[in-house]
Amino acid sequence: MEEKNNLKTAILGATGLVGQRFLQLLDGHPWFDVTTVTGSDRTVGGLYGDTVQWRLESPPNRKIANLTIHATVPDNVDADIVFSALPTAQSLKIEEEFAEAGYPVVSNSAAHRMESDVPLMNPEVNFSHLSIIDEQRRKRKWDGAIVTNPNCTTAVLTLSLKPIAENFGLKSVVMSSMQAASGAGYPGVASLDIIDNIIPFIFEEEEKVQRETRKILGRVNQSSNVKVSASCHRVPVIDGHTEAVFVETVKAATPEEIASSMTEFKAEPQTLKLPTAPEQPVVVRSEQDRPQPRFDRSEGKGMSVVVGRIRSDSVFDGVKYAAIGHNTVRGAAGCAVLIAESMKSQGYI
Amino acid sequence: MEEKNNLKTAILGATGLVGQRFLQLLDGHPWFDVTTVTGSDRTVGGLYGDTVQWRLESPPNRKIANLTIHATVPDNVDADIVFSALPTAQSLKIEEEFAEAGYPVVSNSAAHRMESDVPLMNPEVNFSHLSIIDEQRRKRKWDGAIVTNPNCTTAVLTLSLKPIAENFGLKSVVMSSMQAASGAGYPGVASLDIIDNIIPFIFEEEEKVQRETRKILGRVNQSSNVKVSASCHRVPVIDGHTEAVFVETVKAATPEEIASSMTEFKAEPQTLKLPTAPEQPVVVRSEQDRPQPRFDRSEGKGMSVVVGRIRSDSVFDGVKYAAIGHNTVRGAAGCAVLIAESMKSQGYI
Amino acid sequence: MEEKNNLKTAILGATGLVGQRFLQLLDGHPWFDVTTVTGSDRTVGGLYGDTVQWRLESPPNRKIANLTIHATVPDNVDADIVFSALPTAQSLKIEEEFAEAGYPVVSNSAAHRMESDVPLMNPEVNFSHLSIIDEQRRKRKWDGAIVTNPNCTTAVLTLSLKPIAENFGLKSVVMSSMQAASGAGYPGVASLDIIDNIIPFIFEEEEKVQRETRKILGRVNQSSNVKVSASCHRVPVIDGHTEAVFVETVKAATPEEIASSMTEFKAEPQTLKLPTAPEQPVVVRSEQDRPQPRFDRSEGKGMSVVVGRIRSDSVFDGVKYAAIGHNTVRGAAGCAVLIAESMKSQGYI
Amino acid sequence: MEEKNNLKTAILGATGLVGQRFLQLLDGHPWFDVTTVTGSDRTVGGLYGDTVQWRLESPPNRKIANLTIHATVPDNVDADIVFSALPTAQSLKIEEEFAEAGYPVVSNSAAHRMESDVPLMNPEVNFSHLSIIDEQRRKRKWDGAIVTNPNCTTAVLTLSLKPIAENFGLKSVVMSSMQAASGAGYPGVASLDIIDNIIPFIFEEEEKVQRETRKILGRVNQSSNVKVSASCHRVPVIDGHTEAVFVETVKAATPEEIASSMTEFKAEPQTLKLPTAPEQPVVVRSEQDRPQPRFDRSEGKGMSVVVGRIRSDSVFDGVKYAAIGHNTVRGAAGCAVLIAESMKSQGYI
Repeated sequence: MEEKNNLKTAILGATGLVGQRFLQLLDGHPWFDVTTVTGSDRTVGGLYGDTVQWRLESPPNRKIANLTIHATVPDNVDADIVFSALPTAQSLKIEEEFAEAGYPVVSNSAAHRMESDVPLMNPEVNFSHLSIIDEQRRKRKWDGAIVTNPNCTTAVLTLSLKPIAENFGLKSVVMSSMQAASGAGYPGVASLDIIDNIIPFIFEEEEKVQRETRKILGRVNQSSNVKVSASCHRVPVIDGHTEAVFVETVKAATPEEIASSMTEFKAEPQTLKLPTAPEQPVVVRSEQDRPQPRFDRSEGKGMSVVVGRIRSDSVFDGVKYAAIGHNTVRGAAGCAVLIAESMKSQGYI
Repeated sequence: MEEKNNLKTAILGATGLVGQRFLQLLDGHPWFDVTTVTGSDRTVGGLYGDTVQWRLESPPNRKIANLTIHATVPDNVDADIVFSALPTAQSLKIEEEFAEAGYPVVSNSAAHRMESDVPLMNPEVNFSHLSIIDEQRRKRKWDGAIVTNPNCTTAVLTLSLKPIAENFGLKSVVMSSMQAASGAGYPGVASLDIIDNIIPFIFEEEEKVQRETRKILGRVNQSSNVKVSASCHRVPVIDGHTEAVFVETVKAATPEEIASSMTEFKAEPQTLKLPTAPEQPVVVRSEQDRPQPRFDRSEGKGMSVVVGRIRSDSVFDGVKYAAIGHNTVRGAAGCAVLIAESMKSQGYI
Repeated sequence: MEEKNNLKTAILGATGLVGQRFLQLLDGHPWFDVTTVTGSDRTVGGLYGDTVQWRLESPPNRKIANLTIHATVPDNVDADIVFSALPTAQSLKIEEEFAEAGYPVVSNSAAHRMESDVPLMNPEVNFSHLSIIDEQRRKRKWDGAIVTNPNCTTAVLTLSLKPIAENFGLKSVVMSSMQAASGAGYPGVASLDIIDNIIPFIFEEEEKVQRETRKILGRVNQSSNVKVSASCHRVPVIDGHTEAVFVETVKAATPEEIASSMTEFKAEPQTLKLPTAPEQPVVVRSEQDRPQPRFDRSEGKGMSVVVGRIRSDSVFDGVKYAAIGHNTVRGAAGCAVLIAESMKSQGYI
Repeated sequence: MEEKNNLKTAILGATGLVGQRFLQLLDGHPWFDVTTVTGSDRTVGGLYGDTVQWRLESPPNRKIANLTIHATVPDNVDADIVFSALPTAQSLKIEEEFAEAGYPVVSNSAAHRMESDVPLMNPEVNFSHLSIIDEQRRKRKWDGAIVTNPNCTTAVLTLSLKPIAENFGLKSVVMSSMQAASGAGYPGVASLDIIDNIIPFIFEEEEKVQRETRKILGRVNQSSNVKVSASCHRVPVIDGHTEAVFVETVKAATPEEIASSMTEFKAEPQTLKLPTAPEQPVVVRSEQDRPQPRFDRSEGKGMSVVVGRIRSDSVFDGVKYAAIGHNTVRGAAGCAVLIAESMKSQGYI
């Protein structure tokens, strides 16, 4: 029998695409009960259901639709856990205000990710980084916390790399992404820019992937020294980022050994049976033409990364493979929820 | 004043997508006058215009539409130059029959590309390989010739790499492609497979790119020892292949130096002012979000490769960049026509 | 508590797109247990899971994957109910062989639809047509039965029209469709034909819509005399047909009255609580820009038709509106399953 | 030999998508020489080439790129003819200011279209409406003029209807459109709204089509009393509106007679050989699956309407057919240029 904790939960910036995904994922969640949604000045006071331009398949449930939108200030919020889907520009200051007011904040924004006393977490990859919260509380003298999930592309990449890092070691990673339109939010990418087209540029994305990957794959106090090079591209796909990954390993590894390490990979979220943890974090497919975003993005309810075409590389001593993950689930809201579950499991909430 | 040579020209396999592109490109050509089209048994005897499922924007001209389709046998053809758009399986034997019968054959098929006495040519990159024809004629004891153009992805890649190879030397190349649907012919890719989707696999494509790139960048008798690794993907784009390229150079080079080497690059086809040679083989764009296939695939009438986002790499001592080229023009029929023009300029036709 | 009947069920032509949808819909069905799948000669003897090119999101379950594919002949089948997903050309004769051998056959093919002693059924629209089976058995002297579901476009159209017909009467219907690619099967529509394009033609579709609509809306022995004109178009959408419908009614009706009649509409499948019957057969949305196929095609698990933009017409005394339905669920396999449930409820199975 | 008039030409609102199309169409125009471009306050003072987010295939020529953007006020403009690509909200007042200042203004905006003393022109359809300018000048006491082109959908529809109206008379028209994304401007339609989707609503479009069609098909002082009903839909197509048209004629007409009337149709712009007039205003195709926007939108350089599938209707005494036209050429900038040429030919400029 699932215990029912009913932790009061707030979503900051709930009307955007990531905010919507938070609400969808938390619908029926055994621990987190959304009781507060916040929005921009323009939307404050309205009912969520009347205000949001809902862009996901199933509409918000009646309870959520009837929540009144509050301003994004700590005094207006009564919650045990706060998820931030704020734009980066606003999140820097507002998230600190919430942490100072004692709230544990799990943020999808890039603002705090690279600060040394802020955990940047992909729970199956670096669960131990939770302990950075203790340091943060000491240094910042607050009772709350700021914990961040990675950039969507990084979340998919690092989860696929973790079994390799653990078993064979990583020297270099070259990654070329084909990213879904939903990663740019709504309205986001204009149809005139992407129908019958590819855009070989996403603002600051490559820099984020390169630095976040090293932080996540590193130890608590030290980034990994794996070399990472990313090239990021937008493609005409709704959901699901595809990544072509070329890896140089420390120890020699055959494609079969890499595949086994991925298939067998489990981490703390699986051991602890956290509600949002997928049974199989990395799913390896053997068909010659998989993974594909339309068919594989919902694997593990969007929390698994699907890998295929693992083959020897001809430039590196290592392998190349294709990986797919759901960019607004594993790559954003789902990852944040799993972080919050991890925090609760370790007594940080 | 353009000289008008009126060389009689045959297109083998003229009803397919590459055959159609040959006819479109040769419409109004100053030297090559299409007088014969061949097709499969099912189509022989019909008028071209009644038989073809034309899939390009402007329909074939009246003269072409009224050509009768012949069987693909040397005796049925009266031509000074033969272009082959045959499927690989058929081309192996048929192209040899035509060469034995004395025809110069320029082929878009993969069948003969890797044979040591067959030139595999991207004219601006390895014009000197034309001399392999002499060796071929000696060894095979025929008066005709077989010359091949590269795989579409390789054609784009090698043209973008040539200025770097010449000025700074190449050690390693990692390339991830986003390839247009037209590369798979017609009907080719099913819409159910590619709408809202990416297919991370194209049959034998990566192997072709890796081996053909080394042959083209090599000397007449010796492949280059540059290491090449490719990952090939199909995307929902009609025409134009996009390539994310990571390059390790022998000599250090800044992105600006690489850009200059590309912008300044000219080769024999430009010097000889061959009719199909683009004025600028490699066009470098400075916008942060170009090149894009829909907007750049027609540059130089589809014969130029457009490069952008040249930046320092963080894995290799070198650069990374995005390149776009028209897969059925520079990557197929257009390249073949430029090869034929090159052959004529050197007296091989 | 659901009774569990475990009727043995066969799918004829199980490897195609509609066959796949049958298997997906019957997964976990309370009455129908798929025990036999048949396929073309090429596939007979293989395991279903190894043979099928599965094109739906979630893969077939293990039990289905392990079924051996049989030839499509009555002697090879042991079943209480047979669903036919055969191509029209083959279905004409084969379905009769099965009916003669005593099987009740529910067919998605067009072959028998217009025969006067074969029910053409959209269960909420013409449940009473089941009685035609008695006439069929008498005339054809067999114990089995052939019952057919409509063409996909007709299924959506007639369900949306039924509440209007019942309450206000129908004089004329003009319908322009925007049909999904999955309606053409797999591989079906080439991506080169439909990316950045519309095809204003679907073979025999308009004729089917016009005649099937009159049969379904008619009485057991007499087609309706409503005038119907259809124009059918293929659009770059995966699943879900959109229809622009212009209706001339017998009695005057405001858009609000039409909307109410649709919202309140229930029929025998709802009263009988048949397992596949949607709670609400016609869902009316009030947003100005709905229904949309991507967001509404899964309403009622794909069995509801979603209608919106009901407004007065300026040519007809009547209304115009937009309707969406899932073409391979309500428009094919789902409709057939609902027909079989209807047959069972009335003792025909 | 073309005469070269070199009329100084201004484009108001030149940076938007229609403004860009004006510049592209006027590049090399024998009469109109663009010397002034205007833009919003934010852009004034910048060079056009540095400011515009160019969204068409070939970039603006060097002369245009180097024009300085002016404020949209009459005093800042020195021109013989003014084209307005202003948003509707701004155009109402600004276009009147220009007309009062003596400029002939041809506007793509909806603001003035339905005013009785403003010609709403599709030149091949209602050339005689030019005489309304005389009335306008008398009533409004100005030397300038405001003349408007129709809404894009109406431009395509009315051109296809004109030969029918002329030869057989029109009673009713039912039209269902499938409209390209470029009709919504840039950024316009979000990719998340239109990939794998249809939007069955375009703000005020149906009302525009219904009233503009009657005005254009009417006499100088009296709208036509043809009944028109439109249903408008957005589809994932870049350029080219597709329309399914059902027509009730006054006199009986076979599809062949309708086709002949269209093929033979010529009007004043053809007789006067106006530079932008297509040789064949309505092109009839006989293939069963044409017209299609990707293949037919450039017919007559985007100024022809392509019609196909003319067949008898089963609701109306009349026909149904599919029509395609380029929405930003015939449906916007191209139509406006042809209007200006018509005005010049009759001495209004």
